Amino acid sequence: MDLGITPRVRPLIEQVRQMVQTDIRPLSDEFLSLVGSTGNRFEYSERQTEILESLKALAKSRNLWNFWLTDSEKGYGLSTVEYAYLAEEMGKVHLAAEVFNCAAPDTGNMEVFERYGTPEMKERWLKPLLDGQIRSAYAMTEPDVASSDATNMSMTCVRDGEDYVLNGEKWWISGAGDPRCAVYIVMVSTPSDDRPKHSQHSMVVVPADAPGIEILRAMEVYGHDDAPHGHMHMRFTNVRIPADSLLLGEGRGFEISQGRLGPGRIHHCMRAIGQAEAALELMCRRSTQREAFGKPLAQLGANFDIIAEARMKIEQARLLCLKAAWMMDQGDRRAAAPWISQIKVVAPRVALEVIDEAVQMHGAAGISQDTPLATAWTHVRTLRLADGPDAVHRRQVARAELKPYTNQAT
Amino acid sequence: MDLGITPRVRPLIEQVRQMVQTDIRPLSDEFLSLVGSTGNRFEYSERQTEILESLKALAKSRNLWNFWLTDSEKGYGLSTVEYAYLAEEMGKVHLAAEVFNCAAPDTGNMEVFERYGTPEMKERWLKPLLDGQIRSAYAMTEPDVASSDATNMSMTCVRDGEDYVLNGEKWWISGAGDPRCAVYIVMVSTPSDDRPKHSQHSMVVVPADAPGIEILRAMEVYGHDDAPHGHMHMRFTNVRIPADSLLLGEGRGFEISQGRLGPGRIHHCMRAIGQAEAALELMCRRSTQREAFGKPLAQLGANFDIIAEARMKIEQARLLCLKAAWMMDQGDRRAAAPWISQIKVVAPRVALEVIDEAVQMHGAAGISQDTPLATAWTHVRTLRLADGPDAVHRRQVARAELKPYTNQAT
Amino acid sequence: MDLGITPRVRPLIEQVRQMVQTDIRPLSDEFLSLVGSTGNRFEYSERQTEILESLKALAKSRNLWNFWLTDSEKGYGLSTVEYAYLAEEMGKVHLAAEVFNCAAPDTGNMEVFERYGTPEMKERWLKPLLDGQIRSAYAMTEPDVASSDATNMSMTCVRDGEDYVLNGEKWWISGAGDPRCAVYIVMVSTPSDDRPKHSQHSMVVVPADAPGIEILRAMEVYGHDDAPHGHMHMRFTNVRIPADSLLLGEGRGFEISQGRLGPGRIHHCMRAIGQAEAALELMCRRSTQREAFGKPLAQLGANFDIIAEARMKIEQARLLCLKAAWMMDQGDRRAAAPWISQIKVVAPRVALEVIDEAVQMHGAAGISQDTPLATAWTHVRTLRLADGPDAVHRRQVARAELKPYTNQAT
Amino acid sequence: MDLGITPRVRPLIEQVRQMVQTDIRPLSDEFLSLVGSTGNRFEYSERQTEILESLKALAKSRNLWNFWLTDSEKGYGLSTVEYAYLAEEMGKVHLAAEVFNCAAPDTGNMEVFERYGTPEMKERWLKPLLDGQIRSAYAMTEPDVASSDATNMSMTCVRDGEDYVLNGEKWWISGAGDPRCAVYIVMVSTPSDDRPKHSQHSMVVVPADAPGIEILRAMEVYGHDDAPHGHMHMRFTNVRIPADSLLLGEGRGFEISQGRLGPGRIHHCMRAIGQAEAALELMCRRSTQREAFGKPLAQLGANFDIIAEARMKIEQARLLCLKAAWMMDQGDRRAAAPWISQIKVVAPRVALEVIDEAVQMHGAAGISQDTPLATAWTHVRTLRLADGPDAVHRRQVARAELKPYTNQAT
Repeated sequence: MDLGITPRVRPLIEQVRQMVQTDIRPLSDEFLSLVGSTGNRFEYSERQTEILESLKALAKSRNLWNFWLTDSEKGYGLSTVEYAYLAEEMGKVHLAAEVFNCAAPDTGNMEVFERYGTPEMKERWLKPLLDGQIRSAYAMTEPDVASSDATNMSMTCVRDGEDYVLNGEKWWISGAGDPRCAVYIVMVSTPSDDRPKHSQHSMVVVPADAPGIEILRAMEVYGHDDAPHGHMHMRFTNVRIPADSLLLGEGRGFEISQGRLGPGRIHHCMRAIGQAEAALELMCRRSTQREAFGKPLAQLGANFDIIAEARMKIEQARLLCLKAAWMMDQGDRRAAAPWISQIKVVAPRVALEVIDEAVQMHGAAGISQDTPLATAWTHVRTLRLADGPDAVHRRQVARAELKPYTNQAT
Repeated sequence: MDLGITPRVRPLIEQVRQMVQTDIRPLSDEFLSLVGSTGNRFEYSERQTEILESLKALAKSRNLWNFWLTDSEKGYGLSTVEYAYLAEEMGKVHLAAEVFNCAAPDTGNMEVFERYGTPEMKERWLKPLLDGQIRSAYAMTEPDVASSDATNMSMTCVRDGEDYVLNGEKWWISGAGDPRCAVYIVMVSTPSDDRPKHSQHSMVVVPADAPGIEILRAMEVYGHDDAPHGHMHMRFTNVRIPADSLLLGEGRGFEISQGRLGPGRIHHCMRAIGQAEAALELMCRRSTQREAFGKPLAQLGANFDIIAEARMKIEQARLLCLKAAWMMDQGDRRAAAPWISQIKVVAPRVALEVIDEAVQMHGAAGISQDTPLATAWTHVRTLRLADGPDAVHRRQVARAELKPYTNQAT
Repeated sequence: MDLGITPRVRPLIEQVRQMVQTDIRPLSDEFLSLVGSTGNRFEYSERQTEILESLKALAKSRNLWNFWLTDSEKGYGLSTVEYAYLAEEMGKVHLAAEVFNCAAPDTGNMEVFERYGTPEMKERWLKPLLDGQIRSAYAMTEPDVASSDATNMSMTCVRDGEDYVLNGEKWWISGAGDPRCAVYIVMVSTPSDDRPKHSQHSMVVVPADAPGIEILRAMEVYGHDDAPHGHMHMRFTNVRIPADSLLLGEGRGFEISQGRLGPGRIHHCMRAIGQAEAALELMCRRSTQREAFGKPLAQLGANFDIIAEARMKIEQARLLCLKAAWMMDQGDRRAAAPWISQIKVVAPRVALEVIDEAVQMHGAAGISQDTPLATAWTHVRTLRLADGPDAVHRRQVARAELKPYTNQAT
Repeated sequence: MDLGITPRVRPLIEQVRQMVQTDIRPLSDEFLSLVGSTGNRFEYSERQTEILESLKALAKSRNLWNFWLTDSEKGYGLSTVEYAYLAEEMGKVHLAAEVFNCAAPDTGNMEVFERYGTPEMKERWLKPLLDGQIRSAYAMTEPDVASSDATNMSMTCVRDGEDYVLNGEKWWISGAGDPRCAVYIVMVSTPSDDRPKHSQHSMVVVPADAPGIEILRAMEVYGHDDAPHGHMHMRFTNVRIPADSLLLGEGRGFEISQGRLGPGRIHHCMRAIGQAEAALELMCRRSTQREAFGKPLAQLGANFDIIAEARMKIEQARLLCLKAAWMMDQGDRRAAAPWISQIKVVAPRVALEVIDEAVQMHGAAGISQDTPLATAWTHVRTLRLADGPDAVHRRQVARAELKPYTNQAT
């Protein structure tokens, strides 16, 4: 169970870290400062486009691109463990994941296209996604049902001749606010008495410019709209898509989403670890540079303990993520599932705790725009809900734990 | 030690509660939705002014005004315990405290004017403040020093003939963004070798339109500017004020601020309890109305425990606040001080925990603009830093605790 | 809602505190050191009897006796709030509650006899109990069922002519190891199809010397048998009692136990607060007297924070207990019930946390026989299980909280 | 960084696990039930000796012996990571570590003899220790000083001709109560102005039967004396040892103890993980077998969450221990030190939390002698103090963390 940095990935980590800290960080800050400068927060100014494209070009030129394609000939063929170390570095700065074409939800969507897409889909959507020319979204959550129980999904998808017709609302569609977002993968309800409860849903591919799609509003995360990316609330009214837009077959929606979400959750978690690590670094800098009562903060009260606890939590959470990644690499998704549930609970929690302590160590600066901490906190807070709330994942962990003891009790 | 609702205050609580929930809540939401509608987030639209002034007029007409004037002939003569119950109700909706002319920082500033102001100040500032015609700010925190150690305050205030001349920066000046803010009370450094360390600072009164004052920017709280109120970053350049603007005498700044902050902290804490109570109510509603896995959320997993823990925490925190208020009412500020430090740590912490659980119970809606929870969380989070960070207050509590055992160890 | 120390109870508190600390503490330690000195840990040596009886005589002579008889002509007529303050003092030293004839389970049992007993029972059991001549036990918990769900109680009680005949096992019968224990109040199953689920049990009075009763063993609490008091595991084999030994009527067992347990839980909780307060005092003494790295422990690392948190927790828990006591005093047991459930969770938890921190502050001495801390911890730990585990009480609190929102959801 | 089970150690783990669960567990329980059966708790009955020796003989016959000798020709040459997995299994049952001759403090003492002992010491002490014929103790902690600051150690060791003469007290000398304990390794003060603060102490070897050594009493752990092993309080009065009993040279005591404690802490921590794992297993069994309110406990309230959290904590703590072991295997003790400090804090804490939840799940049985949980809890609780209290280890972690940022701040 090698959870370490392999010789193969070591130089990549160095290159990514260096590019994230040196090249991306300052431009990422500038990019964010320009949000809304055109009068529309979901529009790119010329300078924003320039920043993003120049960084992507630089990454491509250094062959630092599409790392997430684990066991694939198209990418580096990295293992999930190896990729995890890269994801951690990319989590430290806002734009970084996109610069290396490793951002959610595109990575998951690309995997879906690669695995289940028709040749036409691969040509029309996968290719430009792999090239970083378009972006995509993944539409799962709905406003009127408890999405923690995915069988509640209710957007209708009804066969009409050679088409399917979609009706309903989705919200928290991350990235759908981006003008470059060209395609959605959408979970829909396709009920049939012939199939069991977990086979009543399907997944369809919908062009973003299909008639009948409205963006109602941007959902806010603790008051912030995350523009120009956005988490959009959308309405689908008689949206018509050709029948071959339905992936894999009716009723197989969860099969696809399960496969899709595993790696995505590991990426999210490792990026969260990256944010925790960045927060700890800021906390250490602050505590050694700022003085009160005649001493550096580090030497006051419980601050040594706070710093030590942060280090211990991060190390444990990282090792757990690496073990989950390693389980994923063993090829048995069923066996890996409870491990992914574990990190889905642990990594955001640890990151939130560490970031919150870093906020407190910074005083009023910590909650302000003068450090990345406040933004990091609200971002990571979403992870306790996205892709299943903590309670659902804990339930999965407990069920796996109890299985050897009884089949009835779970 | 009567911590209960007295017959005198009971009908007031009912009236305030009813007005907060029925009259203020919907208009408060409308008011917030209009922020920025004029193109300037720190400007009031006509409708915003209309909302605020009509509500204030209604409160005045019902004689629900200036409750905070405890032991004063001008107000109700409520005890701090009695006022605490009203503050809790006012904490539940954004605009409420201002509607009853009970909002920070005005209440504290009015107390300062009442107690230490010259007749001219009372006429020029106190009167319109008591009438709700102007607003005020309190300028303490500075960007370049650890304000947790108040002796660090460095804004200079130098005598020059009949004037004092101020230079320096202040930030997190709450309310200074409001166009109605007419006056600042400002902590300044007036060093003198003749006085001990805690007597090197003074407090001065500065008209908001004094030449040399610049508002540099609005500080953001987890990405939100709290407009039109705002927490401003300001620069004072050669700001000249007449010598009688200095309150009470040189070197007596902390004497004033200590007297000022005690009641204010109780108000803050009881409003935080109000927000916790409001969050628990939302949590209960959500958990009984929303279903997942075929059951109301309340009946799933740990949700009973989460609700019970929230109730137990709130009750304890409220009782502690009431006891601190009762200590304040006994008239010995020195004896009350460690109690106020206790609630300053406890009340925000409890409110944050309860609100966060309410967020989680609401799923993605909880972090969004669709409930008041996310805003409440970020607002209460500031209280762990404002008026002294947790660590400083814990230190005060510990020092008081250890005093009987030794004088050296503290 | 007066939660304070009344003029009436103030001198009693002083007298009790003084007697506990000065008279009882040293003799209590001697008493405990003599356990087992006769070769039988559940036997009293002459000196043990002398210690106990002389202290009881002293208490009686000072009229510090039977305080627990709230609203009764026989006692002081103290309110529950007033008694709570006394219970706190009595919680600080091992023998204290018994010295004042205020120890569990006698107080609860005496209340049962007073309220539901026949004249014969009052003469035979209540009178000597009130005089401190005998002791009693309360037999509820059974080894083979989950006693957290009290409807599981399974000891049979079958009518046979003029008698009832009991069969079954009880364990954790506190005080049943004491040779002075003369009578048991026992929960038994008396099923009847005519009565609902919560009316299938009854309560009977059983002389300790009734044939057929065996003491199987002493249950240990973290390795300690709590001799000579003991928590005994007992077997009842064809134990025959006259029919009028059944209190109040068949099926009314829970009615009695509910009434009995409310005040008892408050007493337990306030004694736990007393133990927390005693632990905090030890922690403060240690932290100011012991040095490491050239400083008193108090000034090292997080110790100020640990002390402050202990103080804040204790104050909150005490106020909550006092409020629950006040609710009890209002006379509506149904309304008071969720408050008692709250303190049943909170008070032991807080006491355990404070004691554990005190242990840690004492280093290896803390876990040893050289301080009362280790014993206090194991004793308080039982309270998280006795009279209902935490989870059951949290459930009660949540049900009460949710009631206004729905009747179905609970 | 291979943290997994190697092919080499896999069969050993299976053999050890099987022997622990099948052979040792029942006899370990019998052994403990016989403590005190001779009338002296620190004496072995014939049956106790038989049990222990027969199990040791069995282990030896299977070549399951002295695993702890990592990188040594005498043992298996296991890496610390490999050994860690074995330690976890041995932690699950009381006698197990000794059965495989892997018990503290012998393993540490044997390493000291191996590394620093004279040929005579190796013959006289190391050989019979390796054979399991005698046992040993390690005398560090003293009653009158804060041993968390090891420079406080005050037992005197004065040169007198060809001898050293020792005077002072030691307590918590684990294993010194065992009649088979033949030798002590003792930390003594040998002050010299020529040496720095951390070079004022030395380590000496003292035969247990040297004149002048008194065992004053057995220290109790939460009321338990841990007989026949014991944690003894001892007095040394003019104990005379030959000069060559001083290891390595005057002033080098800490050098030896640091080297000694690293592996020992890893062993302790992995055994604690084993106890946590055993507790979780009991919790799962109980929660699926016991019913209340008509359902298995597992399905009630927060129990799924409790089980899931236990699993997540254990996995993280184990991975951290394994990483610390791996760091140790890299050969740089200085680099490994903060990792060992991390697990020293984390592993006992996690084990205590999991065991406490298991206790609660078992109801009153959990705190009693009917499960191993209560004993396990008190045993693991000592680990938060032994070999340095949590606070000291957190301090080490923080110092290591802050080093890159400044040299002054630590």
